[in-house]
Amino acid sequence: MIREIREQPEVLGRILDEGWGDILAAARALRSRGVRFVMLAARGTSDNAAYYAKYLFETLLGVPVGLASPSAFTIYGSGMDLRDVLVVGVSQSGESRDVLEVVRRARELGAHTLSITNDEGSSMSGAAEFHFPLRAGREESVAATKTYTAELLVLYLLVSALRGEEGPGDEVRRLPRLAEEMLEAGWSGVERYRYADYMVVTSRGYNYATAQEAALKLMETSYVMAQAFSAADLRHGPIAMIGRDFPVVAIVPPGRAAGGMRELVANLSERGAELALVCEERELVNRVPAGFLVPVSCPEEVSPILYALPPQLLAHGLARLKRLDPDSPRGLSKVTETW
Amino acid sequence: MIREIREQPEVLGRILDEGWGDILAAARALRSRGVRFVMLAARGTSDNAAYYAKYLFETLLGVPVGLASPSAFTIYGSGMDLRDVLVVGVSQSGESRDVLEVVRRARELGAHTLSITNDEGSSMSGAAEFHFPLRAGREESVAATKTYTAELLVLYLLVSALRGEEGPGDEVRRLPRLAEEMLEAGWSGVERYRYADYMVVTSRGYNYATAQEAALKLMETSYVMAQAFSAADLRHGPIAMIGRDFPVVAIVPPGRAAGGMRELVANLSERGAELALVCEERELVNRVPAGFLVPVSCPEEVSPILYALPPQLLAHGLARLKRLDPDSPRGLSKVTETW
Repeated sequence: MIREIREQPEVLGRILDEGWGDILAAARALRSRGVRFVMLAARGTSDNAAYYAKYLFETLLGVPVGLASPSAFTIYGSGMDLRDVLVVGVSQSGESRDVLEVVRRARELGAHTLSITNDEGSSMSGAAEFHFPLRAGREESVAATKTYTAELLVLYLLVSALRGEEGPGDEVRRLPRLAEEMLEAGWSGVERYRYADYMVVTSRGYNYATAQEAALKLMETSYVMAQAFSAADLRHGPIAMIGRDFPVVAIVPPGRAAGGMRELVANLSERGAELALVCEERELVNRVPAGFLVPVSCPEEVSPILYALPPQLLAHGLARLKRLDPDSPRGLSKVTETW
Repeated sequence: MIREIREQPEVLGRILDEGWGDILAAARALRSRGVRFVMLAARGTSDNAAYYAKYLFETLLGVPVGLASPSAFTIYGSGMDLRDVLVVGVSQSGESRDVLEVVRRARELGAHTLSITNDEGSSMSGAAEFHFPLRAGREESVAATKTYTAELLVLYLLVSALRGEEGPGDEVRRLPRLAEEMLEAGWSGVERYRYADYMVVTSRGYNYATAQEAALKLMETSYVMAQAFSAADLRHGPIAMIGRDFPVVAIVPPGRAAGGMRELVANLSERGAELALVCEERELVNRVPAGFLVPVSCPEEVSPILYALPPQLLAHGLARLKRLDPDSPRGLSKVTETW
């Protein structure tokens, strides 16, 4: 896991160098046909990448998005009308049976279909009309890390190409170098969570995906009962459970979500929560007991690609501290067969 | 809260007696215009009702659905193309600022708009083109109960009317009586959770909403860190954290989701999880340490309306046992202002 975490700058660079051509070609074809709606089908880590894509499509492209409920197809046999819908299947292995079935059925039901997988020869790459490989190299750890950030970047480039851009912009060209700096910083103070049985992770907007993925990594590698909430959802009920010493990790990205996140952090501090921040503002990070001072700056739209890294380091460090094997969590395998 | 839990059979009956006319009229208008896609906007408990509606629209009506990310409108100012889209705002109070903004903006952006609120004079009822009242009477407890099941029934009737049905079917006409029987059964054995700090609630398909709502009720009234997963999502990672004595409540409804849920229950038992089932199969309930034997039968499509009740009783009972006030959770108010 730690080796694959460290490979991420290289993988991001490879996608930028080699991935644009396929993406541009698919985007041109899709623009000429017209896409009225997007449906994203994924599970686990890839489903968290889908949350990021939802914001990209809706905000940057103005196309409404739904996250597929695979069981609507696999167990309820829905025959949805999917004309003018782009269905995107995202799967590291490309072998998740239910996500594969969504892509297959969607194509029969009239959708434009696209798959994004790490394994180029996977079943899903053949099932969709368009296919983008992640170029992340073999991922051996069960807990996905480099394939997650690769998915985010590929999805960002897809939306860029659909907007008519001619190549990857400066905001993404800088990512490999910024990712290096993030990883060099490390997450110190993992020890404080040695006996934390549960934890809340929160963020907002584009980085809601980051909170979801942080919680998933903590659950699968460190067996901490971690739950992610958007800042708004947290305030609609769950915040009641947060009292003194309740551990909360708040991802506070730059940009438009920052104001609301700062308000939430103040509110949680008043409740006595034990806060850790992932944030680039030193003054804010210093005000709480723990966290990760983000050493770089980037636009909010691409920040999830960088802000994913500190939680990976936390999850990995905590698993090691608890003498768990983050590469092989109990009862999990690399390809999960669900229906 | 307990009084409002007990009012549910009466509220369901009132909706069946008085609600159909408005719903049929709106459905006729919408059918004549054509709806290609549905977007549901809600927060908290109402967002859980939206999960149920997603399955109804996709499975029974064949229309793809997305759950709105309100911040795409409120903080990122998305100008989505919403022609041919039905946007449904669901809010008990009708005053959630962000959900209200989604409905307002959606109408400007060309969507057909519908609001479902308990308060008929609310801002949201005026903002949408169509409006259905919940007819649940004033809800005083902060933790919503009767407005949740009212939302489920109204959404079910909407989909029935959109399918061309001429009136509420027998499967819903029986609900008030069946709900009485559910409530009479009670949830015994709440005591075992007195010192449970965390809990997983799981179900699948139509009843994924039930698991989400159960977790929310437990968090806001009993301060248990409860997290909901679909059976499939649980197997894509989070299951690793479930070892010996980990408390899990599994909602095992009748119908097509039952097979997968039974497999999951067997898997969780092998891991040594401390299982409680909400299920109508006595033999299955008897095999695990705790649970609620559902005393009635109903089709899967309407089961979330009945299966919501046992978790309400559990959350209320546990709050009382912990000497918490379920009517006024710390730091919450009836109308949550988020943006």
